[in-house]
Amino acid sequence: MKFKRTERIGAIVKILSDNPNKIFTLSYFTNQFNAAKSTISEDLIVVKNVFEKLELGKVITISGAAGGVKYIPKTSKAENEEFLMELCEKISDKTRILSGGFLYLIDLIYDPSIAAKIGKIFASNIDYAEADYVVTMETKGIPMALMTAKAMNLPLVIIRKDIKVSEGPTLSMTYVNGNSKVESMSLPRKALKSNSKVILIDDFMRGGGTIKGMMDLMTEFGAEVIGTGVFISTMEPEAKMVKDYISLIQLDVNGDIITVEPNLKTFKDEYKNEDLEGISEIDNILDEDEEE
Amino acid sequence: MKFKRTERIGAIVKILSDNPNKIFTLSYFTNQFNAAKSTISEDLIVVKNVFEKLELGKVITISGAAGGVKYIPKTSKAENEEFLMELCEKISDKTRILSGGFLYLIDLIYDPSIAAKIGKIFASNIDYAEADYVVTMETKGIPMALMTAKAMNLPLVIIRKDIKVSEGPTLSMTYVNGNSKVESMSLPRKALKSNSKVILIDDFMRGGGTIKGMMDLMTEFGAEVIGTGVFISTMEPEAKMVKDYISLIQLDVNGDIITVEPNLKTFKDEYKNEDLEGISEIDNILDEDEEE
Repeated sequence: MKFKRTERIGAIVKILSDNPNKIFTLSYFTNQFNAAKSTISEDLIVVKNVFEKLELGKVITISGAAGGVKYIPKTSKAENEEFLMELCEKISDKTRILSGGFLYLIDLIYDPSIAAKIGKIFASNIDYAEADYVVTMETKGIPMALMTAKAMNLPLVIIRKDIKVSEGPTLSMTYVNGNSKVESMSLPRKALKSNSKVILIDDFMRGGGTIKGMMDLMTEFGAEVIGTGVFISTMEPEAKMVKDYISLIQLDVNGDIITVEPNLKTFKDEYKNEDLEGISEIDNILDEDEEE
Repeated sequence: MKFKRTERIGAIVKILSDNPNKIFTLSYFTNQFNAAKSTISEDLIVVKNVFEKLELGKVITISGAAGGVKYIPKTSKAENEEFLMELCEKISDKTRILSGGFLYLIDLIYDPSIAAKIGKIFASNIDYAEADYVVTMETKGIPMALMTAKAMNLPLVIIRKDIKVSEGPTLSMTYVNGNSKVESMSLPRKALKSNSKVILIDDFMRGGGTIKGMMDLMTEFGAEVIGTGVFISTMEPEAKMVKDYISLIQLDVNGDIITVEPNLKTFKDEYKNEDLEGISEIDNILDEDEEE
């Protein structure tokens, strides 16, 4: 089958966009579209420009034997702020307040489009270059953790609250949650390879007890936590049990007053300071290619 | 900012692909790209061809006041078979067998790419035109249910096993699970609007007790189940407690022998019998447009 340039470009965008952080070789595209390497190289320059111009992410090439082209999801600072401001407005709706000072948020955090956007924001603001897994704890954090793992192209690991016999030998421990209750968490021995590097994702942090528990569990597995993202952190208590985390939204509920705002200092401006080690700009690579 | 045709096409593909089943008006694109309606119409014909030619899904237009263009994820029968055959090969690995005859599968079903593909296959083979929600039960089904909801552009509802005080007034009931144990399930009253139509998604079905329980819970909410998808169903018992479901993979574990195969009769051939009510082909609409 033959493809026109416009068709090839559309198809390349679709393939890259559906597979963030997955490397595709030039040969993959030359086979797919029955086209010359130089033709595909030119297509990729156009694709790169589309992503740059519309701030839809980065398309970069990796040189070397395992080299190729890949799409890295990036959200712009302005886009993050607009999205989170809208979300904060929804969260500040007083009808969300439940008895006990809890907020009803599951309609928002289970929403696939919202979860996907949160995933892309985490992927834009947490350095996952060396990470092996995204780890979360059931249940509410799972949608955003899955979308983060999708954006980062990493496997997802879900810590369970009870021990599941159907998952084989399991490592369990207790922790103190945000309501000062002792709870348990468990994870199958097979879930993590030894000496792994992990990114922790959770939906909510009050004192940090759950994240602290997850960190302790990672230590038991011989894994290193290299980044932590929580969707909402409370303003009180100011001192959390963990540091080195980012949170997207800060929240305070006092009686029937909800104070909620995007945590703007969190966000890198991805379209200004690009500094990705070991990665060359596509134009250079393609120029070299064509000199062959 | 000005865009070349190739750039506009790349960008339109990215926008549609990131937002399945979301309607974008022609005006949205004319504003986005500072281009005439006729120009965008021509672009959309190219985009439609890209999706058709590469079997990446359908791009269709909806006429009328709320009209516009949208992308519907569709997987081809051949693609489903290839993907599921590969997955079956991984599942049939004997080291997955745990004591009690359980299979270790969470590395596969939590994998974001696998979950995304399963979501697209469910969206290609379950009729969700009238659905309001995708409903699943925690925990293992959540990743594939979220990706199904994303492909269908529907909100996700997660049934919990324990009662969560932090989610407001909750409706709870008991059911008998696949291991003949009585368990409970609960869902906040606010989670579903009255008279909703829902799609049920779960990862595993033995006797059908869990799905039957979910159906009973939906009845309590005044909701109608209009489609059910399970990832794996066991060959035994042949008689399930529910009917009118699709399953993607059939499984039997007998000692150390795993029999596993794609449930091929499930899959529609999406690229042959297209019959979507109330939807016109894009070319017709665009022709009309240009006659104005």
